Amino acid sequence: MSEYIRHDQQGKSVGRVEKQSYTFAQPPSPMTLAGGATIGPVTLAYETYGRLNPERTNAILILHALSGDAHVAGTYSDSDDKPGWWDFMVGPGKGIDTDRYFVICSNILGSCMGSTGPASTDPYTGKPYGLNFPVVTIADMVTAQKRLMDHLGVRRLHAVIGGSVGGMQALEWSLRYPDMVASAVLLATTTRHSALAIAFNEVARQAIMADPNWNEGDYYGGRKPDLGLAVARMIGHITYLSDESMRLKFGRRLQDKADFSFNFDADFQVESYLRYQGRKFVDRFDANAFLYITKAADYFDLERHHGDGSAVAAFAAARSRFLVVSFTSDWLYPTYQSRAMVKAMKKNGLNVSFCEVEAQWGHDAFLLPSDRLTGIMKGFLDGDNGL
Amino acid sequence: MSEYIRHDQQGKSVGRVEKQSYTFAQPPSPMTLAGGATIGPVTLAYETYGRLNPERTNAILILHALSGDAHVAGTYSDSDDKPGWWDFMVGPGKGIDTDRYFVICSNILGSCMGSTGPASTDPYTGKPYGLNFPVVTIADMVTAQKRLMDHLGVRRLHAVIGGSVGGMQALEWSLRYPDMVASAVLLATTTRHSALAIAFNEVARQAIMADPNWNEGDYYGGRKPDLGLAVARMIGHITYLSDESMRLKFGRRLQDKADFSFNFDADFQVESYLRYQGRKFVDRFDANAFLYITKAADYFDLERHHGDGSAVAAFAAARSRFLVVSFTSDWLYPTYQSRAMVKAMKKNGLNVSFCEVEAQWGHDAFLLPSDRLTGIMKGFLDGDNGL
Repeated sequence: MSEYIRHDQQGKSVGRVEKQSYTFAQPPSPMTLAGGATIGPVTLAYETYGRLNPERTNAILILHALSGDAHVAGTYSDSDDKPGWWDFMVGPGKGIDTDRYFVICSNILGSCMGSTGPASTDPYTGKPYGLNFPVVTIADMVTAQKRLMDHLGVRRLHAVIGGSVGGMQALEWSLRYPDMVASAVLLATTTRHSALAIAFNEVARQAIMADPNWNEGDYYGGRKPDLGLAVARMIGHITYLSDESMRLKFGRRLQDKADFSFNFDADFQVESYLRYQGRKFVDRFDANAFLYITKAADYFDLERHHGDGSAVAAFAAARSRFLVVSFTSDWLYPTYQSRAMVKAMKKNGLNVSFCEVEAQWGHDAFLLPSDRLTGIMKGFLDGDNGL
Repeated sequence: MSEYIRHDQQGKSVGRVEKQSYTFAQPPSPMTLAGGATIGPVTLAYETYGRLNPERTNAILILHALSGDAHVAGTYSDSDDKPGWWDFMVGPGKGIDTDRYFVICSNILGSCMGSTGPASTDPYTGKPYGLNFPVVTIADMVTAQKRLMDHLGVRRLHAVIGGSVGGMQALEWSLRYPDMVASAVLLATTTRHSALAIAFNEVARQAIMADPNWNEGDYYGGRKPDLGLAVARMIGHITYLSDESMRLKFGRRLQDKADFSFNFDADFQVESYLRYQGRKFVDRFDANAFLYITKAADYFDLERHHGDGSAVAAFAAARSRFLVVSFTSDWLYPTYQSRAMVKAMKKNGLNVSFCEVEAQWGHDAFLLPSDRLTGIMKGFLDGDNGL
């Protein structure tokens, strides 16, 4: 296990971390998935920060969202790469304090950032799975994470923490392994996708599948469905922002021009921004992984799978303390969905803190530096209600 | 001019209408567009309903939205086609009463429903324009409509009425020809697109342009960019609905299945609905026309082009009575945008009625049968404040 070393320069915490991975479910003992298929071997890429204490009581599992990876904080020792995706929150002395906690983040099953997913080699064919990769669920992702916890000797989690699709995993953890999860932090998430959220994911998937280079998922080694994936990412970016955040960030400002182009170039800054986000994404993400993870998110249904349709019945199994945080301008998983979750928890007499954070930046707000969010997190992990 | 004949069967008004068209701006006297280009000849497809009275005081011009056409009401005399797109509102005894008013609806410049647009033949090459068609604006559409009014002998309009992109045209009419427009009805519209609205249009355009069959707009006679256009339409359909309307209409209901498919078929009804809407659209609409009309909508900026950045300054030119209607669940052009418009009108001492209609169906609400909307329309056209 690598150590997260503190480099405090000009008041900025910089950590050095190592990429690690764990492989299990080797054939002939593969992992059985929720959909009935089996898969193996399964590799999870992960990173750890800080040290597990001798009592093994200080582990925190961070669960990433759709396009995230295991690199949650710090910089790699072998490169000058930019810091991990939640560097403002995770590190020495930060909201999730790596001087005190042993922090683990693993790339999810089905992704393409070092873990087994549709771009991985199918051991039976020696070629990338493509669409032969089985559809995985949030539950399957959690099952794989549990194997990693066993491997790391973690028997109890001080907290599971996740935003968006990561929040779904945290919810699943709290219901599947109630006695292992002391507390769960659920940021900008939902117990099940609304029709609107499914609609956005479906249109994004259709954009990928409409690209002839997608070729029924069999494009590895050839031309990739970059144009389709870029459109899918642009759709995603609209949902991560909000009417207000777009108005503040872009308004109707033009891109390097005094007037309209009167052609189909990007006239407005918001157009350039979306095109850039689309182009950038295709360099780092696999189109099939996008299909699989969005499908897993759409399938997630805590009420259906844990409570026979009822959230109150579902949370009857929970034992964790909960912190639920929504953001005012998040219209992908609006506050009313968090409130419904909190209500169902309270009906079960659970210890739950809820906060709606005033934020202009839409769904993405949980990823953006915020003293308020950091303070809430620190307080909750310290054992008070966080607010 | 055809007559709109009343066929009252089982209490339902059925009209018979004829397709008509008017061609002007024949070279060498083409029409000069806002962007500086010239075009000619220009044909507008249009339909009329009712009769112009001898005093010529009863004409109403209806302005359609993005994918609409001239066929606003009734059925064609030579077919059993379904009624026009606003049949609940327009007809004998209806909200816009064709027994009293002479109603005109023309397909907009740049469209593909009988009017000149990118799919039309370029007289200089004898081939379809494709991207050689100049980018047109809402102002250009209105200029063309004015020529049609001249042709029909209409010198004053009792009302111009439009929803969405049609509302932009109605706004443009009221500022360009203030003494010709007695009243203007603006439904679910805006004086300029927000960054969010531009973003949705841009991603839809990118979906079309990502389709290799689009071929830089040169696809006529070959394979059309149907897959890209279908994705664009699906994006549009999300914006026309709302979180609430999707929840009521679809929720998480599955499509003809008891459980998930664990593949990439449509599992949820909302997915099937979007796929169906996408497929259906490509049979009737031209992908390039979609690009041109969405661009015109994004360019429309009443403040910039009529008020040097100020809505109050822009409406100083107006003389019409106004009725502004927004819908509670419309998140493409939310009520706050209508309120801002109304405020600017009032600062100019204009006679303006405003109503926010409680509606679950999002932006599309103005197209759906509503006694409330019909009542408001009737009252306003009769000369009272409509509310």
